[in-house]
Amino acid sequence: MRILDTKNFTVAGYKAWGISSGIKKNEKKDLAIIYSDREASVAGVFTRNRVKAASVVMDMAKMKTGKAQVIVANSGCANACTGKRGLVDARATADIAARELGVKPDMVLVASTGVIGEFLPMTKVGNGIETAVGLLSNTGWEQAAEAIMTTDIYPKLSIVQEEIGGKTVTVAGIAKGSGMIHPNMATMLCFIVTDALISASLLKKALISATERSFNSITIDGDMSTNDMILCMANGAAGNKRISPASKEFKKFQACLDGITSALAKQVVRDGEGATKFVEIEVRNAKDVVEAKRAAMTVAKSSLVKTALFGEDPNWGRIMAALGYAGVEMDEAKTDITIGKAKIVEKGLGMGKAVERDASHALKQREVQIVIDLHKGKGSARIWTCDLSYEYVKINAAYRT
Amino acid sequence: MRILDTKNFTVAGYKAWGISSGIKKNEKKDLAIIYSDREASVAGVFTRNRVKAASVVMDMAKMKTGKAQVIVANSGCANACTGKRGLVDARATADIAARELGVKPDMVLVASTGVIGEFLPMTKVGNGIETAVGLLSNTGWEQAAEAIMTTDIYPKLSIVQEEIGGKTVTVAGIAKGSGMIHPNMATMLCFIVTDALISASLLKKALISATERSFNSITIDGDMSTNDMILCMANGAAGNKRISPASKEFKKFQACLDGITSALAKQVVRDGEGATKFVEIEVRNAKDVVEAKRAAMTVAKSSLVKTALFGEDPNWGRIMAALGYAGVEMDEAKTDITIGKAKIVEKGLGMGKAVERDASHALKQREVQIVIDLHKGKGSARIWTCDLSYEYVKINAAYRT
Repeated sequence: MRILDTKNFTVAGYKAWGISSGIKKNEKKDLAIIYSDREASVAGVFTRNRVKAASVVMDMAKMKTGKAQVIVANSGCANACTGKRGLVDARATADIAARELGVKPDMVLVASTGVIGEFLPMTKVGNGIETAVGLLSNTGWEQAAEAIMTTDIYPKLSIVQEEIGGKTVTVAGIAKGSGMIHPNMATMLCFIVTDALISASLLKKALISATERSFNSITIDGDMSTNDMILCMANGAAGNKRISPASKEFKKFQACLDGITSALAKQVVRDGEGATKFVEIEVRNAKDVVEAKRAAMTVAKSSLVKTALFGEDPNWGRIMAALGYAGVEMDEAKTDITIGKAKIVEKGLGMGKAVERDASHALKQREVQIVIDLHKGKGSARIWTCDLSYEYVKINAAYRT
Repeated sequence: MRILDTKNFTVAGYKAWGISSGIKKNEKKDLAIIYSDREASVAGVFTRNRVKAASVVMDMAKMKTGKAQVIVANSGCANACTGKRGLVDARATADIAARELGVKPDMVLVASTGVIGEFLPMTKVGNGIETAVGLLSNTGWEQAAEAIMTTDIYPKLSIVQEEIGGKTVTVAGIAKGSGMIHPNMATMLCFIVTDALISASLLKKALISATERSFNSITIDGDMSTNDMILCMANGAAGNKRISPASKEFKKFQACLDGITSALAKQVVRDGEGATKFVEIEVRNAKDVVEAKRAAMTVAKSSLVKTALFGEDPNWGRIMAALGYAGVEMDEAKTDITIGKAKIVEKGLGMGKAVERDASHALKQREVQIVIDLHKGKGSARIWTCDLSYEYVKINAAYRT
C-alpha cells in the first residue's frame, strides 16, 4: 500500500467539487458534489442515534439497491428535526442533482451537517447544485472537502494505492469532524471512493470492519450526532478482477480501506474542537476486547481526564477512577498505567515523583500515549481522543450566536 | 417540617469541629470531627466505583455493626489508590480518634477527600485529631463543614425540625461537592446527624430513598468518585418513641431526611465547579421511571448541552440528539421541549424565532428549568445539573499544580 500526496489527486471515473451556495452566511463553501461516471457499488455506515437527520433516513433506504453514483453534501444546515418537510427537501436535493447529472434519482445520496431544526434553503441548494455540477473536476477533492467543513480548521483528505487483481487500485476519502460529534451534533461525515471492482455486500463488510477500528474508536466529547454517516462507492474503473471474499486481494483492499479510515479518523481527532493534543489510550489484557474498548473509551470520555491532559498534569488517580466506573472487570492492585515511557502506576500504586516528572514531560508533547494494563485477560483495544480545553467550551457556547 | 437557620445550630447529643492540621499546604481547614455522646444507629451509602478509597473499604465493613459514634473526615488527601498502607492509615486514624474520645475503635468512621495516590501524613493527622477533640463544640458545624471543602466555594449545611413520636426531632447535615465528582475524584461527602430514635435498618431504608432523589439525581461532570459517601447517625437523644416501619412517624422522618439531602444536593450543584447556572431537567411521560431518569441524566451529562447552557443558547437540537442516544424509547415526532415557559419544540419541530427569544431570555437566568415530554408512558424524573464553563476547565486543568 502506497500513501500518496493529497494535492490534486484523481481517482479513475470520479469527479468532485465544492462551492459556496449561500447556506452558510459567511460565504464559505457549503455544498459538495461527488460524481462517478458509472454506477458504483455502495456501502454505508450511519449514526445509531434514534433521532436521525432526513438525509440519513433517505440514504439508509436507498442503500438497499447496493448502487449509487452521486453524493450531494451540504454544511451549514443539518436538516435534522425537520419532520416531513425535511424528508421532502432531502428527496428534492437528490432529484435536482439527478436531473442536472442525467442519472436516476435512486443513484443520488445526500448528506447534511450544521444547525439542527432549520429547513434547507431549497432555492440556494438548487442553484448551488447547478453551479457545482458545471465545475465538477477530477481534481476537485480539496474543494469538496472544504465544502463539508463546519468548525473544522482544515480539510481532511487521504489517498492510497495498491496492486489488486493485476491492476493499480486507488482508494481515497474526505471527511469532516471537529468532534466525533459536533456543535448541533451535525458532525462526522466521511466519503470514500475507489476505482476497485467489488460487490456491494463485500464492500459493506470491509467498510464496517474499517469503521470499527477508526471512526468507532475515537471520541471528542462523547456526544453522538443525528447526521453521522460514512459512505463508500466502488466503481470498478480500475479494471481489476472482481475482488472475492476471503481472498488475498480482499485482504489488500481491506488494508487500503483501513489506511484511509484510520488516517481520516486521526485527522478528525487532531482537529477536534479546541484540541491541543492527540491522545492514544490503549487498554491491554482486559477480560476481552469488548471490555478493553469500554475501559479505554470511558477513560477517553472522562472530563476530568481530558482536562488533566489539557493541563499536562499526570493525574493518574483520575484514570484509575474512570477505570473503576467503566463497568469492566478490574482490580486496582493489578493495574499498571504508563504515560509515554513513564510507568507511573505499578500494581495500583504511584511510582513516585521522579516518574511523575517523566510523565509530565511526556504530557507536554502534542502526541501522548497512555497504556493501561489490567492484567485480567487477553483483550486489547486503543482509542484516539483529544484534550478538553477552554477553546472547546468557547466554540460550543457560542456556536449559533 | 420547619427549616431552621444554619447559623450556630445544635443537635442534641452531638458535637463537631474543624481545624487546619497541615494536610493542605495553604493552612485552610482540613480535618473535621463529628461526635455523638452515645452510640448511634448508623447507615451509609457508598460509591459504586470499583476503585474505592481506604476509608470507603473500612467504613463499609464497620457498617455491619449498625452502630457508630464518631466521624473523622479530612480534605487535601483522598487516601485512595494507596494499597495496604492506605488501609493501615485509615484504621490508625480511627484508632487515634477512639483513644482521644474514649470510644471503641469500631465506633469511629473515617472519610477522606483530595488528591488520589498520596499517603496520609499520619503525624499531622494524629496531632490534628488531638487538637480538634479539644475544641469539639455543640455549635461547631460550620467549622466542620469548612474542613471538608476542596474546591467548594462555600460550606454546605442544612437543618430541619419536626414533631415525631411526641418530641421535637432535629435532622441536620453538612456536605461537600463541587462536582458530583471532583478533581481527583475525591468529591461528594455528606454527613447527616439526627437525635431521632430509629433502628439502623430503618435508617438505611430512609437514607437510600432520600439519596435516590437527591445525590443520585445530580450530575456535574459525569465522573464518579472513589471516595463518595453519605453517612447518617441517629443517636435517640430526642427521646422520641422508636420510629417504626411504615408508620406516620416514619413518613415524617423520611420527609425530614429528604429535605436535608435535597437541600444539600442543590447546594452541591449550585457550587459545581465553574457553574454559572442551576439547571433542572425534567423528563415526563417516558416509558417508565428508569427510562425517564436515564433520559434526563443523558441530557444533563451532554457536554454540548452544558456548553449551550453556559452560552445561553436555546440550542434544542442538542437536547433532541442527546435524547436520541440515551437508549430510551422515544419518538422525535412526539417529543415536546419547554425551556422556562417557552415551549420551544412541539411534536419534534421547532416553534420559531419568537419562542426561541423567550427561551433565550429564560436561559439568561441563574435558575433554568427544562421540561421534556416524551409522550411514551407515565414515567417521570428530574435531574439537577449545572452548565459547563471555561472555569470548569481551568479548575480541573490546574488542580494539582
